[in-house]
Amino acid sequence: MENKKNTRREFIKRVGAGSALAAISTHAAFPAFSVKKPKKTADVALNLGLQEGVTPGKTLNEKLDFLEANEVYGLEVGGGKLASRVTEIQNALQNRKVKISAICAGFSGWLIATDENERKKCIDTSKVILEAAGALGSYGMILVPGFNNQQPSFPFVEARAILIDQLKELGEFAVKNKTTIILEPLNRKEAWFLRQVADAAAICRDVNSPGVTCMGDFWHMTWEETDDMGAFISGQLYLNHVHIASRKTRNTPGEDEGDNYITGFKALKMINYKHFVSFECGSKGDKKVVVPAALKLLREQWDLA
Amino acid sequence: MENKKNTRREFIKRVGAGSALAAISTHAAFPAFSVKKPKKTADVALNLGLQEGVTPGKTLNEKLDFLEANEVYGLEVGGGKLASRVTEIQNALQNRKVKISAICAGFSGWLIATDENERKKCIDTSKVILEAAGALGSYGMILVPGFNNQQPSFPFVEARAILIDQLKELGEFAVKNKTTIILEPLNRKEAWFLRQVADAAAICRDVNSPGVTCMGDFWHMTWEETDDMGAFISGQLYLNHVHIASRKTRNTPGEDEGDNYITGFKALKMINYKHFVSFECGSKGDKKVVVPAALKLLREQWDLA
Repeated sequence: MENKKNTRREFIKRVGAGSALAAISTHAAFPAFSVKKPKKTADVALNLGLQEGVTPGKTLNEKLDFLEANEVYGLEVGGGKLASRVTEIQNALQNRKVKISAICAGFSGWLIATDENERKKCIDTSKVILEAAGALGSYGMILVPGFNNQQPSFPFVEARAILIDQLKELGEFAVKNKTTIILEPLNRKEAWFLRQVADAAAICRDVNSPGVTCMGDFWHMTWEETDDMGAFISGQLYLNHVHIASRKTRNTPGEDEGDNYITGFKALKMINYKHFVSFECGSKGDKKVVVPAALKLLREQWDLA
Repeated sequence: MENKKNTRREFIKRVGAGSALAAISTHAAFPAFSVKKPKKTADVALNLGLQEGVTPGKTLNEKLDFLEANEVYGLEVGGGKLASRVTEIQNALQNRKVKISAICAGFSGWLIATDENERKKCIDTSKVILEAAGALGSYGMILVPGFNNQQPSFPFVEARAILIDQLKELGEFAVKNKTTIILEPLNRKEAWFLRQVADAAAICRDVNSPGVTCMGDFWHMTWEETDDMGAFISGQLYLNHVHIASRKTRNTPGEDEGDNYITGFKALKMINYKHFVSFECGSKGDKKVVVPAALKLLREQWDLA
């Protein structure tokens, strides 16, 4: 298990390197032709996590018991009503090895809405979640700029511009709360606006705030990326979280024939990724059986990567 | 220098692998979680090329003399009026080591136009160029789906759908002529519609024709990609051409301080890229001086990659 505080410092440092590059550029964006070499990969550990709903157990304590019994030290919780749960979660995590990995959404409204009220609602509710995320030591709060069914939204170019303006504000607020916004690309059935990790990373670069980061979700990547390695390497300066599920049906990893994450894992090792790979998935079988089997499969594939 | 015929067969084979993956998918797109391992990189050669306008010399023969004297074996010519130049170029290339690398645009209209006449004009003029491209043994014809100033264009989602339909037709026509369409992502000042190599590759995958491929241009990538390596790895199944220029001002490589292509070159070695890296750039100094200096710089950086 990593030392999370050190990892966060490293993370901010990495993002900081991006800002330094930005400063030497004469363009709104900055040249990213870094000569960063892939790190030696042997010593990069796989940090697995589970969403609360994916974790077997009736109570939070039972879930934490399950996680620790399976050497899983990341718990991802939903952002909905999170503020009211901060004390409960803080108490439950005392004397535990488990940390809060990321906060999954939970906000209202959306940032690329044409309706200013919807945008404001998103900012206001996100700030409440960010405060809770910071109090819980979470790496960040996952945010989707706009789902397909959230209409009317701005056309693409205008949407990107207004998104970036608002992310500057949210990023600053997140940094004050020692956490971040984590942009999540989804597949086209859910969100055409942001589908690829490289594009999410480019938005982060354009925002240029250590409080704005991105993630990749193997499930969405299955449909939108042509190469898992390319996606994660493109995201490397900003990659703050990873979701995982089976590749064809979004169930527990291993529940679909041929589930394979090795190319992506290889990239995560190359970029020295130390944050969490967190299960966001359903299950076909009994979670008490299929989750441990998935953990074993992923650890094996990590070793092969 | 490569054996071009073998390389093309390899290329079609690589693209064919994508088609095979598509066939096992139950989704419109196909899962791309290939476990393809990076190749041994030591034996991948850098194949440099120049655009005709970049090459010093008053006549085509003088230009070919310059290329061969500098061990450059790829010539990229414009698509405008290319049909009328096929015999001239074929004759000039006799007993030369130089091959036609790619054909740079030259079509009229654009494929994401709302006006059907503009779309048809693009298809018709592209077909004429593709016939000439095939006759000249070119890897393909570079195509931009729509520049920012080509309006009215369809909104993003509709544009992508109509683009893919038309690319199926153009791809089939290209294959019959033993060549391809090469989609080029540009920077946002020129074309918001297609900015990143990963997105171009995703379009190729969705079209699913061996006649539709993509490219990366280091100049545009400077502004739109967060990582050259991630971009090229994402494009690997479809990457058919590369453009290069100085990174800050689009002049000859090396004419801007700090010009660095090593991360991208490293990726090109990893994906076993054997097609051309072709100069599309202006120059600050005398081309007879700065082009050979650029060739030296790029060969050194390739060796370092």
